[in-house]
Amino acid sequence: MVYEARCYSLAEIASLVEGRLVGNTKQTIDALNTLKDAVPGQLSFLANSKYIASLSSTKATAVLVAEAYSEKVPCSAIIVEDPYLAFAKLSQLFDWREKVVPGVSESAFISASACVHKEACVSHGAVVGSETVIEAGVYIAPNVVVGNRCKIAEGTRVEAGVILYDDVHIGQRCIIHSGAVLGADGFGFAPSKGAWVKIYQLGGVRIGQDVEIGAGTTIDRGALGHTYIENGVKLDNQVQIAHNVIIGEQSAIAGCTAVAGSTRIGRHCTIAGLSGIVGHLTLADNTHVTAMSLISKSVLQPGQVLSSGTGQESHRTWKKNVIRFKKLDEMAKRLTALEHKLDNFSSEG
Amino acid sequence: MVYEARCYSLAEIASLVEGRLVGNTKQTIDALNTLKDAVPGQLSFLANSKYIASLSSTKATAVLVAEAYSEKVPCSAIIVEDPYLAFAKLSQLFDWREKVVPGVSESAFISASACVHKEACVSHGAVVGSETVIEAGVYIAPNVVVGNRCKIAEGTRVEAGVILYDDVHIGQRCIIHSGAVLGADGFGFAPSKGAWVKIYQLGGVRIGQDVEIGAGTTIDRGALGHTYIENGVKLDNQVQIAHNVIIGEQSAIAGCTAVAGSTRIGRHCTIAGLSGIVGHLTLADNTHVTAMSLISKSVLQPGQVLSSGTGQESHRTWKKNVIRFKKLDEMAKRLTALEHKLDNFSSEG
Amino acid sequence: MVYEARCYSLAEIASLVEGRLVGNTKQTIDALNTLKDAVPGQLSFLANSKYIASLSSTKATAVLVAEAYSEKVPCSAIIVEDPYLAFAKLSQLFDWREKVVPGVSESAFISASACVHKEACVSHGAVVGSETVIEAGVYIAPNVVVGNRCKIAEGTRVEAGVILYDDVHIGQRCIIHSGAVLGADGFGFAPSKGAWVKIYQLGGVRIGQDVEIGAGTTIDRGALGHTYIENGVKLDNQVQIAHNVIIGEQSAIAGCTAVAGSTRIGRHCTIAGLSGIVGHLTLADNTHVTAMSLISKSVLQPGQVLSSGTGQESHRTWKKNVIRFKKLDEMAKRLTALEHKLDNFSSEG
Repeated sequence: MVYEARCYSLAEIASLVEGRLVGNTKQTIDALNTLKDAVPGQLSFLANSKYIASLSSTKATAVLVAEAYSEKVPCSAIIVEDPYLAFAKLSQLFDWREKVVPGVSESAFISASACVHKEACVSHGAVVGSETVIEAGVYIAPNVVVGNRCKIAEGTRVEAGVILYDDVHIGQRCIIHSGAVLGADGFGFAPSKGAWVKIYQLGGVRIGQDVEIGAGTTIDRGALGHTYIENGVKLDNQVQIAHNVIIGEQSAIAGCTAVAGSTRIGRHCTIAGLSGIVGHLTLADNTHVTAMSLISKSVLQPGQVLSSGTGQESHRTWKKNVIRFKKLDEMAKRLTALEHKLDNFSSEG
Repeated sequence: MVYEARCYSLAEIASLVEGRLVGNTKQTIDALNTLKDAVPGQLSFLANSKYIASLSSTKATAVLVAEAYSEKVPCSAIIVEDPYLAFAKLSQLFDWREKVVPGVSESAFISASACVHKEACVSHGAVVGSETVIEAGVYIAPNVVVGNRCKIAEGTRVEAGVILYDDVHIGQRCIIHSGAVLGADGFGFAPSKGAWVKIYQLGGVRIGQDVEIGAGTTIDRGALGHTYIENGVKLDNQVQIAHNVIIGEQSAIAGCTAVAGSTRIGRHCTIAGLSGIVGHLTLADNTHVTAMSLISKSVLQPGQVLSSGTGQESHRTWKKNVIRFKKLDEMAKRLTALEHKLDNFSSEG
Repeated sequence: MVYEARCYSLAEIASLVEGRLVGNTKQTIDALNTLKDAVPGQLSFLANSKYIASLSSTKATAVLVAEAYSEKVPCSAIIVEDPYLAFAKLSQLFDWREKVVPGVSESAFISASACVHKEACVSHGAVVGSETVIEAGVYIAPNVVVGNRCKIAEGTRVEAGVILYDDVHIGQRCIIHSGAVLGADGFGFAPSKGAWVKIYQLGGVRIGQDVEIGAGTTIDRGALGHTYIENGVKLDNQVQIAHNVIIGEQSAIAGCTAVAGSTRIGRHCTIAGLSGIVGHLTLADNTHVTAMSLISKSVLQPGQVLSSGTGQESHRTWKKNVIRFKKLDEMAKRLTALEHKLDNFSSEG
């Protein structure tokens, strides 16, 4: 399918974002770009005052700005309350993804008992298991494997090569990026005589609606009962979600973070990248975890911000500080002893 | 294939786990569940006294318990030494995986010189390379790619989309989860004039028996000689095993942990998630590493428990402590100086 | 295809590495090996003096050494300036990979508007999108999915199961290992009324030449403009590169490291494994980051070495030191107070 350029008038754009246009309604936009890189025919935005220097010199045809900056725009301006949000909404107009063309590829394999809606698309080399339901408007990319007794609801995109094990349900309008694996066995083993006996993972995975799951992210099936990713959750790449975890609505987790088994993360939480959340914990709503932090205790008060780690420094001084860290408990005791000694001294004085 | 419900009498179950049944031998169980969520017809277990409150109110038909709790069970009880282990063993009865149906899919491609046992199953879109041997009872899922000169021993499952490079051997009764890549090149480069010259990785990968490898886990081929994963090892999701690593029997590594090149990990070790083991180290048997720890020195005494990191705290206080960490070496020197000063003081005094 | 053993005379080998042969020119080598494991017919090398003990007892037919060790070699010697580099160059002679056989598999699907060079190879189950260009000598392995408007330049290898989204360009002589995903959406969302609005990622991915990308590595497409991986870069397994990152020429990043959005990493940098580089930073040329370090501030001076973390210790003492770390700011204040107190004391005294 030919990739089509798209073109919109400033009037259309202002209308789409409920903005006030100051400029030529007939000018057209065919792409979005940064203030710095934009050329005529492109739309940009100012959402962060630190980029204000780029505003006066921009070659964009029009710029999305907040009221406060409207006078500073050298070209057409579309004035909105939240330029960043407006830009996000407009980005969808320029999405490069092809429209979903319904149909099942000849080289796909669909189980006889599966139910694929005629308005769904199943691509080359994809496999759909028994009793699986695929609803209207769903896009199943090439070489996807969907297990048995799965359900993929309306409008969801499953990108190339994604693997769904049996009993994985995904809600409407989700995007599952390539390399993701949903429903693999949780890491469950019982120790016995120096060896490990496998605990078969009998639950499934339940993904809500409007969830986005990044490339290479793994979400394990529950041991008993399901692993739940609630509505609106956004998981970045290479996130690991263990068995029986529950991620609350609208929470966002950045790349390479791992959440261990049976932990419950509340709503509207944000967890930065390369972090670890230990198992069987509860994180209240609106918990925020900074990058590369290990959370090993439950967080019951909502709205907290948590961190761990030492911060970066030159390797040379870091080595010295690490040597001291290992003696920190001793140092603390010596400090206390000194305080006592000096107290005695002054009282004897 | 239709997913069949399975049903067992309490007598059968008690016999399977060598337990003592106190209750109605004819009652049947068709699923496992937690004490809290179980309904009639389901079997539960008590392995951790912190869940004792759920025992009295459980609606399960029967509960696996240790002798000490046998009087407290409100329904039928199966008394065993280790309820957790018994539960693990029973979980296999309710495995949702379909029985392996021997045969090679029409859409699979098998090299002429490969040898696929007639009791093995090779699914849609799978590819098997030259001189590769696939033994009886092996399950190769859809879209798996197995390279040349590989060997997959009896009863092993290779889940959808797994990739084996050339010269990867896997022992009996293993499970390799989707997204896993076995035998990619180790990360080997020689510096030359500001650039990197590739060191071709000439070894392979050798996996023992009863090994489970999690989703997205990567195990690199050796530079010279093989990378070895010994019998009974369990690797969680997104673990990274570099070239020429040896993981000793029955060791378990949790999610997102990385082991760098040529490191040897002993037997019966447990390494928690998001940890890093630096290259060319030796970890003795029974070494235990806690979550998100960096191990950069060999551990030669068996049975040690190692950790690194600072623990979590509120971001606000953490920032202050990090500022101080950077001056820790200075603080230690100031402390020592103070001690001397006070010593001098007292001796003069 | 039959895997062929390869055989070279010492004269040929010495010539290939521009080394001086001391020994029998007609002896042949058919494999490389370590000093310890080598048997007759194999070539080894000494690059690190800590292995010198293995030199005298080696059974190798010949050893690559520097001039300083030439007298110590018990068998034939090939004397070179840099034995490690020479070994790296020779490793290519023994590469197990089959020669690329041009042709397009019947079970591959190539879009009508794609352009696949007749000297390229596209394997079973691979998919190539519209307007994509695949140049001579390119190897596309089984079950690879290449999107629309991609370009893969001469001599590049794309290993089994790799996924390229639309608008991904890869330069010459690259290797992309299995499980890698290039061009998935960057993690971009605008907050709105407690939910997240997707920011469509309109850029692509541009990979230079002679780049190697490890198994399971994910490189996201840019939000606006591209994500760039420059010539000669080496990325290990399970690395995560976020949208609009630029990795400078010849930089190397080890396993499981994540680089957040819009960060620019200079040339000739080395970043060890399990590290995190926060977004919107600049790292100067020749920056080196040690394992499991979090870099959260730009590094503008070239040539620096940076670290974070506490180093490993026994879990028992670590717990005590962590308790003290949380009071480090307090400890520092108490230390300062003590110093003042003692100063006052002495001045009074």
